[in-house]
Amino acid sequence: MPTSRLEAFSDGVFAIAATLLILDVTATGPGLSAQLLDIWPEYAAYAVSFISIGIMWINHHVIVDQLGKVDRTFLVLTVIFLMLIAFVPFPTHLIAEYIDKDFADARAAALAYGVTLTSIAIFYNITWRYAAWNGRLLRHNFDERVVSGVSRSYWLGPVSYAVATAVAFVSPAASAALYAAIALFWVLESSIFSRR
Amino acid sequence: MPTSRLEAFSDGVFAIAATLLILDVTATGPGLSAQLLDIWPEYAAYAVSFISIGIMWINHHVIVDQLGKVDRTFLVLTVIFLMLIAFVPFPTHLIAEYIDKDFADARAAALAYGVTLTSIAIFYNITWRYAAWNGRLLRHNFDERVVSGVSRSYWLGPVSYAVATAVAFVSPAASAALYAAIALFWVLESSIFSRR
Amino acid sequence: MPTSRLEAFSDGVFAIAATLLILDVTATGPGLSAQLLDIWPEYAAYAVSFISIGIMWINHHVIVDQLGKVDRTFLVLTVIFLMLIAFVPFPTHLIAEYIDKDFADARAAALAYGVTLTSIAIFYNITWRYAAWNGRLLRHNFDERVVSGVSRSYWLGPVSYAVATAVAFVSPAASAALYAAIALFWVLESSIFSRR
Amino acid sequence: MPTSRLEAFSDGVFAIAATLLILDVTATGPGLSAQLLDIWPEYAAYAVSFISIGIMWINHHVIVDQLGKVDRTFLVLTVIFLMLIAFVPFPTHLIAEYIDKDFADARAAALAYGVTLTSIAIFYNITWRYAAWNGRLLRHNFDERVVSGVSRSYWLGPVSYAVATAVAFVSPAASAALYAAIALFWVLESSIFSRR
Repeated sequence: MPTSRLEAFSDGVFAIAATLLILDVTATGPGLSAQLLDIWPEYAAYAVSFISIGIMWINHHVIVDQLGKVDRTFLVLTVIFLMLIAFVPFPTHLIAEYIDKDFADARAAALAYGVTLTSIAIFYNITWRYAAWNGRLLRHNFDERVVSGVSRSYWLGPVSYAVATAVAFVSPAASAALYAAIALFWVLESSIFSRR
Repeated sequence: MPTSRLEAFSDGVFAIAATLLILDVTATGPGLSAQLLDIWPEYAAYAVSFISIGIMWINHHVIVDQLGKVDRTFLVLTVIFLMLIAFVPFPTHLIAEYIDKDFADARAAALAYGVTLTSIAIFYNITWRYAAWNGRLLRHNFDERVVSGVSRSYWLGPVSYAVATAVAFVSPAASAALYAAIALFWVLESSIFSRR
Repeated sequence: MPTSRLEAFSDGVFAIAATLLILDVTATGPGLSAQLLDIWPEYAAYAVSFISIGIMWINHHVIVDQLGKVDRTFLVLTVIFLMLIAFVPFPTHLIAEYIDKDFADARAAALAYGVTLTSIAIFYNITWRYAAWNGRLLRHNFDERVVSGVSRSYWLGPVSYAVATAVAFVSPAASAALYAAIALFWVLESSIFSRR
Repeated sequence: MPTSRLEAFSDGVFAIAATLLILDVTATGPGLSAQLLDIWPEYAAYAVSFISIGIMWINHHVIVDQLGKVDRTFLVLTVIFLMLIAFVPFPTHLIAEYIDKDFADARAAALAYGVTLTSIAIFYNITWRYAAWNGRLLRHNFDERVVSGVSRSYWLGPVSYAVATAVAFVSPAASAALYAAIALFWVLESSIFSRR
């Protein structure tokens, strides 16, 4: 099966999961103007998750770009990976709603977010290593710098998300700040560092 | 009409139906951490339905890959098939919500899920047999092994879902477990068995 | 601008509008099994609207297939046409909810549905006539039979929907039955009559 | 990375953000027919936002059409741009709900809408200027008239939206009317003026 089929379905899930995030940004009057300021955690959660999903979409294409074909195992791995991506709106809602509530609920919300993102990062690694193992699915003329760069740097995602998740046991707010920092790092890494 | 048009619409419906499943995973505080464990049927239903839709997406492409053209009858059959796919979030919500409630409601939910999945499997068969009949829509150079393999194994889907549905009359929980087992079987069949 | 861009956006709106229809199919326990039978108007409304949107998707492609290019006016007309398509879930919800309630509400719901579908049929005509006028956007080698067939039969959609809408003043239920009959007619017309 | 990948994800977000707008058009009986007239601000907000997103989709393609490649910085800018597009359903809901309520809430809603649309217009500019700067990402044979036309007219969007936003401090209703007028202007500009 050529990779184009895979991309239409994947792009759809990425786009829908990101766009559904807006359904959890809500405000009601009276006193609307005060409320629009009070719900800043909802904006922050929306922005961090949208950008995180967007970065994963970009990285997913970096992988698929290096492939010459896909097999059924890779398709099934991708379906499971997308199942995790489409799950993101749920913990995003939780962290926006509970991060400023009592400690136990805030911690549960931050852990739910972190476990989801860590799982995505790990599964991303598995999917990539399956495809790249002995060049199994790589295209003939794959870009060696991209492939070795991806393989080298892929531990970074799972480790940074795992650390941010562990921080939630001590401080849910610090954990949430770290999730935002990781998203910001990827944005800067993509747009500035990569241009040296 | 070439098959590419069909795929954009189909991939869209598959991707949206799968991604909408997350809207039925919900939890509220206080006591969020306990609740996040209590709602495991919602996670299970989400995962089983997402993967089932994903597998159907893969199999749909196996069919379309063998076609050289589509006619209006095939398009209409596909629209009805997609109507059934897009219906999946409804019984998924029911089974997640009622499987651990009283027997009559759990049975109704398990039956609703089973009837939906059985209908999808039957309609999948009809769509395929319409396309493959006397090679009506097959492409010139279709893969004979794929075509005969699909034709032979297609009874498996309707029968396995029908059996799992019938089990709901005796035990809704066992029926739900069978739906999960069928999804798991297709994952393993795709990723392991098919590689012999 | 080539027509491929147009199709990705259009197919997305068609697929999302159709798939969102499932959000209005709902049931709650206890007494779930009785309720799953009671909500048959929701299933019927879901099916009729999904298939109607699906048929419009097919017909939209029949148009676009005959085009060699699109201009900005055609794009804007298409955006307005898609705005009407994406509106369908709203009157679908109304007709499913109110068709078996008191006469005035049922009539309002049936009228809302009919006005929406009639507007879609009229706007479809406008879009097509803009494109076909003096062959403005038609491709060099357009299929004359398709073009004259489309131009001839296009009054059928607006008129049949307008009649069904008018019937709502007398009998909302008869009006709803006519909407279903029109959808069924298009299905049969596509799949059976067109094969003579 | 070729531009086709970018388009699938972008078209998805545009299509979903526009189609989700219908979820905020709601009415309940009894007295449905009176209510269907009373909620005209919901229809107006739906139409203005759908058409605004549609016009931005068209303009986004005008940009991408002139590009020969994209780099990671451009992808990240696009993700942020799409994050703002996907945000539109939230202020659309606010303006539909609160424009006819008390002054302070109506003003807050009109400001929220205006700030969102102004941000989109500004970010659109930034994305375009990044791509066009010294012809960075332009394709070899870009259309000079399009490129200089886009560069010249791009101040129009941010300024007109900023003015309409400022008007909200004095009259939220006038501000809302201006948002509608801007959308109408772009429709006419596309479909009539551009044909001289």
